[in-house]
Amino acid sequence: MAELILHDYWRSGAAWRVRMALSLKNVPARSIPVDLSAGAQAHPAYRAVNPQALVPALEAEGTIITQSLAILEWLEETHPTPPLLPKTPLARAQVRAMCALIACDIHPLQNLRVQNYLKAHNLNPGDWTRHWLSEGLAALETLVSAQGQGFCHGDSPTMADCFLIPQLYAARRFKVDMAPYPALLAVEAKAMARPEIARAHPDAHPDKPD
Amino acid sequence: MAELILHDYWRSGAAWRVRMALSLKNVPARSIPVDLSAGAQAHPAYRAVNPQALVPALEAEGTIITQSLAILEWLEETHPTPPLLPKTPLARAQVRAMCALIACDIHPLQNLRVQNYLKAHNLNPGDWTRHWLSEGLAALETLVSAQGQGFCHGDSPTMADCFLIPQLYAARRFKVDMAPYPALLAVEAKAMARPEIARAHPDAHPDKPD
Repeated sequence: MAELILHDYWRSGAAWRVRMALSLKNVPARSIPVDLSAGAQAHPAYRAVNPQALVPALEAEGTIITQSLAILEWLEETHPTPPLLPKTPLARAQVRAMCALIACDIHPLQNLRVQNYLKAHNLNPGDWTRHWLSEGLAALETLVSAQGQGFCHGDSPTMADCFLIPQLYAARRFKVDMAPYPALLAVEAKAMARPEIARAHPDAHPDKPD
Repeated sequence: MAELILHDYWRSGAAWRVRMALSLKNVPARSIPVDLSAGAQAHPAYRAVNPQALVPALEAEGTIITQSLAILEWLEETHPTPPLLPKTPLARAQVRAMCALIACDIHPLQNLRVQNYLKAHNLNPGDWTRHWLSEGLAALETLVSAQGQGFCHGDSPTMADCFLIPQLYAARRFKVDMAPYPALLAVEAKAMARPEIARAHPDAHPDKPD
């Protein structure tokens, strides 16, 4: 297979999901930085890559795949070992539901473009962001408490962990009180002890500013 | 397989996606109404079904599946005919990316809980909603123009059409100018001419108020 190219930003939670999945599957990809702090995602050259002007985007076999959910499913189909989804359809659905809870119902309400919109309309994004983060994490705490055995679902990493770890990092940035989420914090501690997970962290990214 | 139970609301765009996929696959499910207009989703009895207090939720084999993306993937795995994803991993990724664009980057910013939050903070949700809807539909117009041949991707219905049709209905409710999206409107017209798609529409739902 030809080289994979990841349009990436060191602090993007959505790009981090993809870096973690690539790392867990030991699939190399060349990272091309899209500097969100400088607005590089809105440049016409990048819009030609992704008309949504968002990271991540993955180039594979000359085709661009956008959306982290779609990229992780593609990785699972083309690089199935180790699996990041369980075997039975119902268990797979439970993992995908956790991913979607984060990808649909938490992250889009706190990401950079929404923060910028709120600020441009003289609204303080802090309370807004903490409201949606807390509501989403509370539901996730219930699901992980029921389904997790060390990781979000069962006893090995799945796609759901690739979504959880960046979301908890974002929650701390937004000063969410983490005390109500002991099951999520336990998963995070166990996950971050794995080198293949730790090396996908923004602090380990070569593009992180000094 | 035991009877499927869909926790449903006639006007919910996310529940509609599931109804459309069930209809396209000719899979029966018993609809149980959760009256969002009366706040029934926040009742403890429903939170025991879905801790997120959102519809849809599908009960299958005694297990609850939440999140429309997860439900549609489960349906595809357990009821593969007719398929709602193409055959090759790259084409599947393109369809999933369209679904995620709508499910993550449009719908969560316009759904009922966000509208209610904005109103409770004395903010007019109209401009907000039209901003995110227009931005998302513009990106989708580019993708469908490149990948569609009658439907969103190729010449037969996929999951992406199950996401598109409810999103266009919502866009009209929020008075979005639809003129910039001729490719999306052409897909909608072709799709709605199919009885199995038309019968999933909110106007055809038995719970629609008179």
